Amino acid sequence: MSAAAKILVSEVGPRDGLQSVASIMPTAEKLAWIAAEAAAGVREIEVGSFVPATLLPQLADTAELVRAARQIPGLTVAVLVPNLRGAEAAVDSRAHKITLPLSVSESHSLRNLRKSHGEVIAEARSIADLLRSLPQDQRPHFEGSLSTAFGCTIEGSIPDAQIARLAEALMAAGCDEVGLSDTTGYADPVAVRRLVRLVRSVVGTHALTGIHLHNTRGLGLANALAALEEGITTLDSSLGGLGGCPFAPGASGNLVTEDLCFMLAAMGLDTGIDLQALLEVRKIVAAGLPAEQLYGFTALAGLPLGFQGRVS
Amino acid sequence: MSAAAKILVSEVGPRDGLQSVASIMPTAEKLAWIAAEAAAGVREIEVGSFVPATLLPQLADTAELVRAARQIPGLTVAVLVPNLRGAEAAVDSRAHKITLPLSVSESHSLRNLRKSHGEVIAEARSIADLLRSLPQDQRPHFEGSLSTAFGCTIEGSIPDAQIARLAEALMAAGCDEVGLSDTTGYADPVAVRRLVRLVRSVVGTHALTGIHLHNTRGLGLANALAALEEGITTLDSSLGGLGGCPFAPGASGNLVTEDLCFMLAAMGLDTGIDLQALLEVRKIVAAGLPAEQLYGFTALAGLPLGFQGRVS
Repeated sequence: MSAAAKILVSEVGPRDGLQSVASIMPTAEKLAWIAAEAAAGVREIEVGSFVPATLLPQLADTAELVRAARQIPGLTVAVLVPNLRGAEAAVDSRAHKITLPLSVSESHSLRNLRKSHGEVIAEARSIADLLRSLPQDQRPHFEGSLSTAFGCTIEGSIPDAQIARLAEALMAAGCDEVGLSDTTGYADPVAVRRLVRLVRSVVGTHALTGIHLHNTRGLGLANALAALEEGITTLDSSLGGLGGCPFAPGASGNLVTEDLCFMLAAMGLDTGIDLQALLEVRKIVAAGLPAEQLYGFTALAGLPLGFQGRVS
Repeated sequence: MSAAAKILVSEVGPRDGLQSVASIMPTAEKLAWIAAEAAAGVREIEVGSFVPATLLPQLADTAELVRAARQIPGLTVAVLVPNLRGAEAAVDSRAHKITLPLSVSESHSLRNLRKSHGEVIAEARSIADLLRSLPQDQRPHFEGSLSTAFGCTIEGSIPDAQIARLAEALMAAGCDEVGLSDTTGYADPVAVRRLVRLVRSVVGTHALTGIHLHNTRGLGLANALAALEEGITTLDSSLGGLGGCPFAPGASGNLVTEDLCFMLAAMGLDTGIDLQALLEVRKIVAAGLPAEQLYGFTALAGLPLGFQGRVS
């Protein structure tokens, strides 16, 4: 793990990946995955989501995972929360970071969280109030994620003004930062640049550092490159490309962590991640999810002959 | 077809795709593919390779394909040639463009063409002499392609100085331009930028306009984006991602034409290509190659809701 690592690869497979597959991975195997990926140098992992187990039984062990993952030195333990109740559970289990998704498409918000924009912003305000009541050293980092930012399978493209207004509303409600999320795999490099600039013009550069991209139409890494060139420093991805949003049809396919890390290493961007060790983690995930397909080009092709990453 | 189209997508599937699969596609079905893709707005297609039919029986009908494809208005008919004999066949059949590959890795050159660097440069000189003997209006455009430019599966990375020297030698031998080819799928966006600049510093900007990328490690479109940002205007790709180099193990996977064209259209870069019509061409290729797998994300996911490309 490098103290000077410039780019943060945030692994979302245990949350975004596992919520999208039918199989339920046993807790011990999730923990083996999380521990192995942290040992390979991954510094942030979204381990689950505090949603009712009746909705997503695959993630029912999130509290247990947070508590266990917190024991791993240097690892930021992140969770998704849909509302105040989820945030309370996240605080109880001592998560380091919580993310509240806000679909900039109100139709998608109503279908995904059953909440209007106003209702999600009200949840954000309640969560921020809760967090402010905690001692500083127990206060998780609070991100509001602008999902379906690049377009929605119900509404199509979303007006820039609406995205800007919602980014501003999340910050006004008390989020520490906002993120951009291509829930539907509609993004392209020009749109990535435009939306990063748009949202930063509203919330400030410091309050938009991360992006969540999908590879639905094969553009995932091209979009990641555009984001990097705009100065984005946190990229979400999923080991083996597991996952996607079950409420956005055809939207499966997170960025593949291994391919993203290969690209970053080849470009000389330090992530602190050992690529060979990362590729080995696939075996744990494959063993824990025998019925699921893992994706990724680098794992199939292997690293280039003599590859050691570029010296930056 | 747009006269103002800024980016040339050069379809290489009938050559690079078909040489890599075991099946032999009947000539009539190749022609249906070529005609349908030209009708969708693709302006350049590499229809085959003038190599002995004993080596690549899949491409034995190249002369017939060139003659037939030349009847399609506005289409540039390109072929690969390994030597002077191939160039003579290309001239006889009236190809518009011929490409001679020169592996910058001499080990790969010896394995692929059974020729040293000096021998390939000598072939380039003989081909240029032949072309100069033709009336101007019958003279095909002559490109020397720097293959394995981003690294070789036998030698690993190739020194910049060697690549620069060979680019210069191809131009001195009489090529009209050179191209960069990531035969092995080793490229990354930083390497693309560096090599485009390096080669242009030697041959001039006008003499390097095209790049041939593979998607072996999933970085194909990210590399294409880097190339576009460097001012490259011709991108090779293969319908359904067919193909790769049979002499570079693990190097399968051209850029998928459909995914590349989706990215370009989304970015507002005019190619003159009708995306829906292009996606329909997959049916012809699938019918002509029932034993082969077609790839591509956009075809699986469909175009985004309301997608019309970006207005530039």
